[in-house]
Amino acid sequence: MASSSLHLSQAFLARAVYLNPEIRAASLSSTSSLSFPALKSSSSSKPPTSRRRTTPAIRATAVETLDKTTEASLVEKSVNTIRFLAIDAVEKANSGHPGLPMGCAPMGHILYDEVMRYNPKNPSWFNRDRFVLSAGHGCMLQYALLHLAGYDSVQEDDLKQFRQWGSKTPGHPENFETYGIEVTTGPLGQGIANGVGLALAEKHLAARFNKPDSEIVDHYTYVILGDGCQMEGISNEACSLAGHWGLGKLIAFYDDNHISIDGDTEIAFTENVDQRFEALGWHVIWVKNGNTGYDEIRAAIKEAKAVTDKPTLIKVTTTIGFGSPNKANSYSVHGAALGAKEVDATRQNLGWPYEPFHVPEDVKKHWSRHTPEGAALEAEWNAKFAEYEKKYKEEAAELKAIINRELPADWEKALPTYTPETPADATRNLSQQNLNALAKVLPGLIGGSADLASSNMTLLKSFGDFQKATPEERNVRFGVREHAMGAICNGIALHSPGFIPYCATFFVFTDYMRAAIRISALCEAGVIYVMTHDSIGLGEDGPTHQPIEHLASFRAMPNVLMLRPADGNETAGSYRVAVLNQKRPSILALSRQKLPNLPGTSIEGVEKGGYTISDNSSGNKPDVILIGTGSELEIAAAAADDLRKEGKTVRVVSFVSWELFDDQSDEYKESVLPASVTARVSIEAGSTFGWHKIVGSKGKTIGIDRFGASAPAGKIYKEYGITKEAVISAAKEVS
Amino acid sequence: MASSSLHLSQAFLARAVYLNPEIRAASLSSTSSLSFPALKSSSSSKPPTSRRRTTPAIRATAVETLDKTTEASLVEKSVNTIRFLAIDAVEKANSGHPGLPMGCAPMGHILYDEVMRYNPKNPSWFNRDRFVLSAGHGCMLQYALLHLAGYDSVQEDDLKQFRQWGSKTPGHPENFETYGIEVTTGPLGQGIANGVGLALAEKHLAARFNKPDSEIVDHYTYVILGDGCQMEGISNEACSLAGHWGLGKLIAFYDDNHISIDGDTEIAFTENVDQRFEALGWHVIWVKNGNTGYDEIRAAIKEAKAVTDKPTLIKVTTTIGFGSPNKANSYSVHGAALGAKEVDATRQNLGWPYEPFHVPEDVKKHWSRHTPEGAALEAEWNAKFAEYEKKYKEEAAELKAIINRELPADWEKALPTYTPETPADATRNLSQQNLNALAKVLPGLIGGSADLASSNMTLLKSFGDFQKATPEERNVRFGVREHAMGAICNGIALHSPGFIPYCATFFVFTDYMRAAIRISALCEAGVIYVMTHDSIGLGEDGPTHQPIEHLASFRAMPNVLMLRPADGNETAGSYRVAVLNQKRPSILALSRQKLPNLPGTSIEGVEKGGYTISDNSSGNKPDVILIGTGSELEIAAAAADDLRKEGKTVRVVSFVSWELFDDQSDEYKESVLPASVTARVSIEAGSTFGWHKIVGSKGKTIGIDRFGASAPAGKIYKEYGITKEAVISAAKEVS
Repeated sequence: MASSSLHLSQAFLARAVYLNPEIRAASLSSTSSLSFPALKSSSSSKPPTSRRRTTPAIRATAVETLDKTTEASLVEKSVNTIRFLAIDAVEKANSGHPGLPMGCAPMGHILYDEVMRYNPKNPSWFNRDRFVLSAGHGCMLQYALLHLAGYDSVQEDDLKQFRQWGSKTPGHPENFETYGIEVTTGPLGQGIANGVGLALAEKHLAARFNKPDSEIVDHYTYVILGDGCQMEGISNEACSLAGHWGLGKLIAFYDDNHISIDGDTEIAFTENVDQRFEALGWHVIWVKNGNTGYDEIRAAIKEAKAVTDKPTLIKVTTTIGFGSPNKANSYSVHGAALGAKEVDATRQNLGWPYEPFHVPEDVKKHWSRHTPEGAALEAEWNAKFAEYEKKYKEEAAELKAIINRELPADWEKALPTYTPETPADATRNLSQQNLNALAKVLPGLIGGSADLASSNMTLLKSFGDFQKATPEERNVRFGVREHAMGAICNGIALHSPGFIPYCATFFVFTDYMRAAIRISALCEAGVIYVMTHDSIGLGEDGPTHQPIEHLASFRAMPNVLMLRPADGNETAGSYRVAVLNQKRPSILALSRQKLPNLPGTSIEGVEKGGYTISDNSSGNKPDVILIGTGSELEIAAAAADDLRKEGKTVRVVSFVSWELFDDQSDEYKESVLPASVTARVSIEAGSTFGWHKIVGSKGKTIGIDRFGASAPAGKIYKEYGITKEAVISAAKEVS
Repeated sequence: MASSSLHLSQAFLARAVYLNPEIRAASLSSTSSLSFPALKSSSSSKPPTSRRRTTPAIRATAVETLDKTTEASLVEKSVNTIRFLAIDAVEKANSGHPGLPMGCAPMGHILYDEVMRYNPKNPSWFNRDRFVLSAGHGCMLQYALLHLAGYDSVQEDDLKQFRQWGSKTPGHPENFETYGIEVTTGPLGQGIANGVGLALAEKHLAARFNKPDSEIVDHYTYVILGDGCQMEGISNEACSLAGHWGLGKLIAFYDDNHISIDGDTEIAFTENVDQRFEALGWHVIWVKNGNTGYDEIRAAIKEAKAVTDKPTLIKVTTTIGFGSPNKANSYSVHGAALGAKEVDATRQNLGWPYEPFHVPEDVKKHWSRHTPEGAALEAEWNAKFAEYEKKYKEEAAELKAIINRELPADWEKALPTYTPETPADATRNLSQQNLNALAKVLPGLIGGSADLASSNMTLLKSFGDFQKATPEERNVRFGVREHAMGAICNGIALHSPGFIPYCATFFVFTDYMRAAIRISALCEAGVIYVMTHDSIGLGEDGPTHQPIEHLASFRAMPNVLMLRPADGNETAGSYRVAVLNQKRPSILALSRQKLPNLPGTSIEGVEKGGYTISDNSSGNKPDVILIGTGSELEIAAAAADDLRKEGKTVRVVSFVSWELFDDQSDEYKESVLPASVTARVSIEAGSTFGWHKIVGSKGKTIGIDRFGASAPAGKIYKEYGITKEAVISAAKEVS
């Protein structure tokens, strides 16, 4: 704490200056290049007067007087190139967010041109520094930087196609569209939490694989986040963990521009961010002039790197839309094109004589060195790795498996199997057997729970806790921070393809982390969500803890594998599916209560999504088909037994994953659910929403379309009619 | 800040003591009644030794030597009554959380017996102090307090029925089950955010209605929150707003017991909470001995009340499971019954000779005064209100309307209506017309947006901003804090029945606030969720911002009204439904893009959920039924026009709310969707999940079952096949 106290007290002082208009007015005259956003009453739309004072100074340094020895002017020119690429792309699209790129261009330039280690021709080089634009709406900043740095993914034509159908430059950064983008951001706060995940991954791998004579894992994670990210709860959760874990190689730039969509942040955001980050265990530095204070930014990064036991927040005070004479420092420049007139005025103001999208030759030339330098960095690392491999064969193999996602040939043999004779058990316990078996064969399996490890049954018994002092371990303790947990796992998954992160809470609390799960699905992060206590079957905790609509809500979400295994074999099958689907997150809904191992279930069956576990009919024409999932498959099976005794032919289908069933051939689907058999009954202790697609217009659905209740589980099942009797009765009605 | 600096520096010092085992060991000898949880390594399950040292001192004051002049011993006895009611109820249920009630009984006692103003025989008396147990799992604390205080809702039998079917004492506090419970808690962090909403409501009403000679609105909001609540992002969001708004009558007790489910909080929660709250603009006090330091607790509350411009956090260091000789200060006492043996040992340890559920006579008698005192408090306030009413007739009428939810007789006339000639407009703009019209006639309408007011179109033009200095205003600026926004609105809604809170963001960001929306639905808070940018129709922002599965996910959620109006009349109808449904939250999905006003739409139609807007068939036998919602109803209508030109009889149905349609009679449903007409096509720019129930096995669904894309809206509609041509083609296939 002592190491940063000087900066903090400076920050307090300057904050006081900021908050006190009189001191501010007095101080402005002595800080010619620093623009303080003026306090505005929310009813006033008058632009602050302080802004214009700063621009002449800027113009003076931005005129075209490039001298190759004058490095500073080239920097300025490069920075303005970034600004105008953003301005021009947004203008052409007539859509987008120019304000952030214009304000953050200096830090962006320093990061990509002076600080970060990367190879533009191989964006997936393992040991690259990671960069996350948590304020994803400012993506033109990142596209401009990737373009200058020589990434093939963002050519001039791509910039001209900003936000257009099929382009590599969508409206927010998308890792699955654009090489060089690490994670998918835009929903605020996700990016900083992804950054925590990336930094966790680095710290873990470094501790696990580095040797005294070889730091084979050694990179930084840089994040730019804005006021919006700061306000979101997820960022506080993630940053609390980053401080707790002491992620010293995480360096976050807080674009402190005092403007959000609704206007001055004074209307809703007056907390002391610096002090909060100190409280979270971060090192905090304030760069007061982020618009032109290049050396301040450089010094801050240097200082941040020197603090190795804490993450660093560099608060960079900037002017949103810097350079725009009439729109800078106002919300109007946040999320709309400047307009032709203001673009012209900005060109005038910053002394920019070029056509739209033009990169001056000297700037181009300056940046061109990153291609050979990046190649050299990677080659150097490759040589280092070759040395490492010679000395540490086993570790090198394991690290390579994580870097390249090489699953051991026989990893699946580790999955446990069960017979109907195996004693009944909760699928959450069976899940733990799987996790522990897989941890032995999958070097990239790492994860934990949001303070429910002993309920979710997620502890890996052969490993200790990932902590500040023991980052080589694999049990991650997320605390009660579901949202950050999901986003951190996204970061881990996208750090290296061989990572298989899992995380856990009660199924109902996916509501807390839904935004992160959606990003998993969108950004193709194969996170395994271990969600226990998956129905009213959890009993006495009552309706606040009992999921009802959650299965339906995830079945409706694109690219998610929603799995609800019924017993041991199906739990193992669900893990097999989850591990194999690198680009789809899997959600496992698991029971708190014991379930019997049913005849007919199998790992192979799970892979089909829906499959027959028992049938006494022939010719694919049962009298009735009973369809169940998870804990209710047992009920369907018991009902079938009774119906068969009465002479009916009954097929029982386990519908463990709708998405996997959807992926099957029409022929297979017909073999399980023949179109001619309309007598179908579904049973699931959750919303019936969606089930009519499966049971058809003539079928019956048994489920729960109201909130749960607080009572022992058996009582609730009975009162809610989730019973064998209800299935039998429905089967007789439809057949 | 100065007012709390003393406490803070004490806190820092003591935290240093806590973190430094040597200082701690030394200090323990001089603080006999203060139990510091020992630092445990995560692998060690050995209980800390400091615990036992504290218990003899406790026993000495807890023996049955009651002297009526010895108030302290009666307090101790009352506190132990609370502890044992919790212990006994959890034991009988063999389920529940005894640890928190045992640790928090002292603060609970002081609040309900000495501090709070309430009338147990009228739990809905308007001017009562509000109490929220944010750490809802400790609900036996609250049930015990309600029982002692004389609330009819929690009798001895109710305590014996803890967590049983149909009881008034469910597993977590539920306002809709138990009078005297203000809000529904359990999902962590919700309660503190509800508390911010309750305190906001009080501050707003006080500023609006109090007069120099009459403080007619004047109550406190008390919250108990635990480590779990503190870790959740929602609590940081809500507390940042509470500090920003200066909610001086919000007093939160942080049960600082250093234990969460996974063990010592050291494994995941080492931030400096005091400092964080200071940064958020709170006054912070630390009660070091929450177990027996009654006077410290009292002094803290007194100090908190004296600080009127800031909310106060009283950090109360307690021992979870205090009094249990073998389980106190460990996670084992958090969420499971103590077990018969340990219950006996705890009775021994605390000197408690009574049978389970017994309330000693002197304790009973002591608490009995709250019934007459509560009645007197209410009578006094009623007399004050009568005086107020005489002097301030208009204000009194308005306040009464908020207290009793009296809607003006002709409020609905304020709703705007539209004709097909009215120019096309986005439903988000039409929503703003409705909000502004309603604000004039509904005194309880208050709300705002999560930093998207200018996109969500939610500003009330005749009001200013609710801010620290202007709390009488009605535009609430939530900042980018969706989750807290929802939970704060729940608090406002439950403060007084006449409040009609609304809140807004982009529809996709309901993912950030889903847990709060679910609580709205469960706890019957009629919040209006104004959710704009409701589909791919938002265009260039791309898939991170385009909802797909969100309509389906809310249709599956119990007790939610999911409304997707198609034009002006349907938007007005949606607001009519939203206002009238006091006990169901309404979610309005609204377009960013312009939509025409369609012939046939109506406010009355919306109330049916699904209704025919045009039909050229007779005898309830159209060739085909086209069903659309929101922005796609226009496409269905256009397709119908073309099909009719080809000689088909076509019915077009607007399906604006599935839930409202479900509520209609079978006869009505048959009149709209006759069973005999199986030729049905649905169109909606969202997931098709669930639509098969409406269109049947032979119908067709047109929708989007993948993520969106970044491009102009028209282009995405075309590429995704959400077109008139697709509807016509599907209609021909099925009819």
